[in-house]
Amino acid sequence: MIAICGSDDCETLKTSSIMLAEEIGRLIALRGGILVCGGRGGIMRAACKGAKAEGGLTVGILPDTKDEANEWVDVPVATGLGIRRNMVVVNAADVVIALNGRWGTLNEISFAQIFGKPLVLVRGSGGCVDDVVESQTLALCGTRYSVAETAQEAVDQAFSWCKNTV
Amino acid sequence: MIAICGSDDCETLKTSSIMLAEEIGRLIALRGGILVCGGRGGIMRAACKGAKAEGGLTVGILPDTKDEANEWVDVPVATGLGIRRNMVVVNAADVVIALNGRWGTLNEISFAQIFGKPLVLVRGSGGCVDDVVESQTLALCGTRYSVAETAQEAVDQAFSWCKNTV
Amino acid sequence: MIAICGSDDCETLKTSSIMLAEEIGRLIALRGGILVCGGRGGIMRAACKGAKAEGGLTVGILPDTKDEANEWVDVPVATGLGIRRNMVVVNAADVVIALNGRWGTLNEISFAQIFGKPLVLVRGSGGCVDDVVESQTLALCGTRYSVAETAQEAVDQAFSWCKNTV
Amino acid sequence: MIAICGSDDCETLKTSSIMLAEEIGRLIALRGGILVCGGRGGIMRAACKGAKAEGGLTVGILPDTKDEANEWVDVPVATGLGIRRNMVVVNAADVVIALNGRWGTLNEISFAQIFGKPLVLVRGSGGCVDDVVESQTLALCGTRYSVAETAQEAVDQAFSWCKNTV
Repeated sequence: MIAICGSDDCETLKTSSIMLAEEIGRLIALRGGILVCGGRGGIMRAACKGAKAEGGLTVGILPDTKDEANEWVDVPVATGLGIRRNMVVVNAADVVIALNGRWGTLNEISFAQIFGKPLVLVRGSGGCVDDVVESQTLALCGTRYSVAETAQEAVDQAFSWCKNTV
Repeated sequence: MIAICGSDDCETLKTSSIMLAEEIGRLIALRGGILVCGGRGGIMRAACKGAKAEGGLTVGILPDTKDEANEWVDVPVATGLGIRRNMVVVNAADVVIALNGRWGTLNEISFAQIFGKPLVLVRGSGGCVDDVVESQTLALCGTRYSVAETAQEAVDQAFSWCKNTV
Repeated sequence: MIAICGSDDCETLKTSSIMLAEEIGRLIALRGGILVCGGRGGIMRAACKGAKAEGGLTVGILPDTKDEANEWVDVPVATGLGIRRNMVVVNAADVVIALNGRWGTLNEISFAQIFGKPLVLVRGSGGCVDDVVESQTLALCGTRYSVAETAQEAVDQAFSWCKNTV
Repeated sequence: MIAICGSDDCETLKTSSIMLAEEIGRLIALRGGILVCGGRGGIMRAACKGAKAEGGLTVGILPDTKDEANEWVDVPVATGLGIRRNMVVVNAADVVIALNGRWGTLNEISFAQIFGKPLVLVRGSGGCVDDVVESQTLALCGTRYSVAETAQEAVDQAFSWCKNTV
């Protein structure tokens, strides 16, 4: 199970980030991975859409109710935890891919590092992910992470982490 | 999504309860429902096994890691919440079927009533479910619940609740 | 730290239960205990009021915001967990005293047994507590619990549990 | 209630950060604030020590058990949520002061921004706080935050946020 974390719908979300997320979702499904995410819009919807284009299985860990799921979620898990459901997204995954993002994604990145989950950061995707890639915190305290430049690299690294972990 | 709540493996779990859970799982799958449960042993394993016998989809909301899932879980969601994951099982479901059970099941029954989730109690399945069926609390404060005598009745009532809710 | 669990304000809450809760709060403070509870009305307010009458310290573990606290709470801890904050009330306590109550109290009783927290049930206080005292679940699966008939007995038992635990 | 967030004990924690935290704790108590924090070592212990030096009240929101509290915590709240208790620290506070820190503090900063809690970042305190002060995420998506250079400024800003909020 591979998590994709990134921005929900918002004005500043670039088309290139959406396309990147969709491509990552597609590649995960092609290699037989289950996609898990926060189940809503923006990066999450794009990743789910990509995964479904290749017949993959998508799991959406939602804040409160099933209605919040985007149209490409197969298994909606309405946690009732509100925004705090981020910790479940990260915990449920074998590896976390983060791209773009704002505070919610930063929250998920910090949970991934706290829980010791392998983390793939997609450099150049904008938002908080690029902040983290350049940060002193990552340089000094980062563990089990890698930096990818493309969708293909991100998915390769994710599956490589899975293999090394299991 | 229909949740089944009941005892994990334990000495006192009767064969009749196991068979009842398996039959309920089978009937849920036959009618196209997704089975959600705590993902572990006992009643949960039996329900998943029944659902898979009919080609259904099973979701296990697990305490901490994927390793805890029984062999019939398709989608393991390792929450990291420990035993507190019960609240996610209940919240994720459209309706909750409870049978047999001890403190964990009583915890789920109380969450179902607190959250206002429709609740089907299988009378005669033993454990805390029979305690609740006879309780003053249910008589005075119970809302959106029904009592079933058989697996068939339980699943009929569950789907009836779903229809009336959505 | 001693938790008191019981009904929030509701039509069916009897004056005798309110008086019992106030007396328990008073006795806890007299013996130097910190009172912890859900911080709201009914049984919780009465217990806090009793504790403050003797100069005790009261901690309210609240669903979402500080505004929800009753007027006798010294330390409001707004968890943001909503009704799920029950598990924090129980976990934070050294021992749990339950009286009267409905589904929320049943939720706390089940958490106390699941977490292995010593539990004092006040018989005759009505609601779900009397259901649990008479239940098969308690008889067969109950651990570390005692049954009290009066406020004095309840507090004596609670402090006795604390002494044996620490 | 004012939260202080920062590193637990670790090799890289500088004496200057410890002294800064202690001074902030002292100033909060002097102005009548209740100090809330994660209740453990490092920045948290120093802040609690400072607050107690002026007779303040300290609340420690702990991961699992009371034993984890540092010696300056008056009210230990053992949540049972493990590291996930960070969200309760932030939610319980009226304003959050962050200094130094690693992934746990970054987690708390992201929760503060997500919950809309006023946030005071102490520039120059090192760790993730300086990363955030310089980040694009703060520049583009930051709300209700201020940057302080000294302990005095941090506490002045915190009380100013409280006044404007209530």
